[in-house]
Amino acid sequence: MAGNLKEYERVILGIDPGTNVMGYGILGVRARNPVMIAMGVVRLSKFESHYMRLRRIYDRTVDLCSQYLPDELAIEAPFFGKNVQSMLKLGRAQGVAMAAALSRDVPITEYEPRKIKMSITGNGGASKEQVQAMIKRLLAIPDESILPELDATDALAAALCHYYESGKPVVAKATSWKDFIARNPDKVKK
Amino acid sequence: MAGNLKEYERVILGIDPGTNVMGYGILGVRARNPVMIAMGVVRLSKFESHYMRLRRIYDRTVDLCSQYLPDELAIEAPFFGKNVQSMLKLGRAQGVAMAAALSRDVPITEYEPRKIKMSITGNGGASKEQVQAMIKRLLAIPDESILPELDATDALAAALCHYYESGKPVVAKATSWKDFIARNPDKVKK
Repeated sequence: MAGNLKEYERVILGIDPGTNVMGYGILGVRARNPVMIAMGVVRLSKFESHYMRLRRIYDRTVDLCSQYLPDELAIEAPFFGKNVQSMLKLGRAQGVAMAAALSRDVPITEYEPRKIKMSITGNGGASKEQVQAMIKRLLAIPDESILPELDATDALAAALCHYYESGKPVVAKATSWKDFIARNPDKVKK
Repeated sequence: MAGNLKEYERVILGIDPGTNVMGYGILGVRARNPVMIAMGVVRLSKFESHYMRLRRIYDRTVDLCSQYLPDELAIEAPFFGKNVQSMLKLGRAQGVAMAAALSRDVPITEYEPRKIKMSITGNGGASKEQVQAMIKRLLAIPDESILPELDATDALAAALCHYYESGKPVVAKATSWKDFIARNPDKVKK
């Protein structure tokens, strides 16, 4: 696998860390086109111990960094949750995955679920099934490669969202009305 | 320093992870007596980037594990907080410190702040100053070794709490009233 990685200009690791399942997706950029290299899930619910789960997230993320040598990590990170208990647990899962990437000098960018859905489907409220269908189409993934786990395509969606976002030209701040109008013709009423 | 570590039967790393300051304390057990080996704080507020802070927590915890070869990590971990945002951030800081320990195969035990205060001062609502005063007395730390940072003594308190807790004989569950009374004479009204 490592030999094949040479054909990619850029490799993005997408991660959707949870306390029961961690989804991951590896996106490669070849001749300026995003392609799926791999995707999968790490099942955590089989471990009763909270620490065993955290350890598994850490170990698998380090493994993914060693195996696919990603240039960047895109992480799906909800900022809002139902209660402080679940947010603390989620924060730990995120922190452990982040530590694994940081220990390998892989820079991190996080995206809210809504932002990822918007970027992939054009609808911030899209279902996981809709995200999977779009990912399948955008990356031309054959049916037999699609896992039943929606967390895997969610992670791949985070990576693809990062690819789209980081490819955008940085728009300088407008310094005058004239300038603003020139940069935003769609905001001008005709 | 590593040479001196041989005189300790056991080394416990105590950590109080926060998003602005991380306190740490190294407790050694020598001839069945707990003694302070080191304590300190890692200042995080100077880093604007959230990831730089997490990276610093990770790197310093790995350093502490390499330098003092702790047998266990005791971590001060509040389970309740004001809002989901701060709990997510705290969870990340905890997760990163935990990942560092897990990567070095150091087992983790977490204690709520109230439990630590109770164990050290006998009062679950004790102030940080009271905890510091008791730590100073219990470990016979000379005045000049006490840092002004209360997070350092808080971390040492987590380590000492773990020492006390882990030294307790494991009490089997009572199987009958007679048994319960035998094990809990203080709960019997006279």
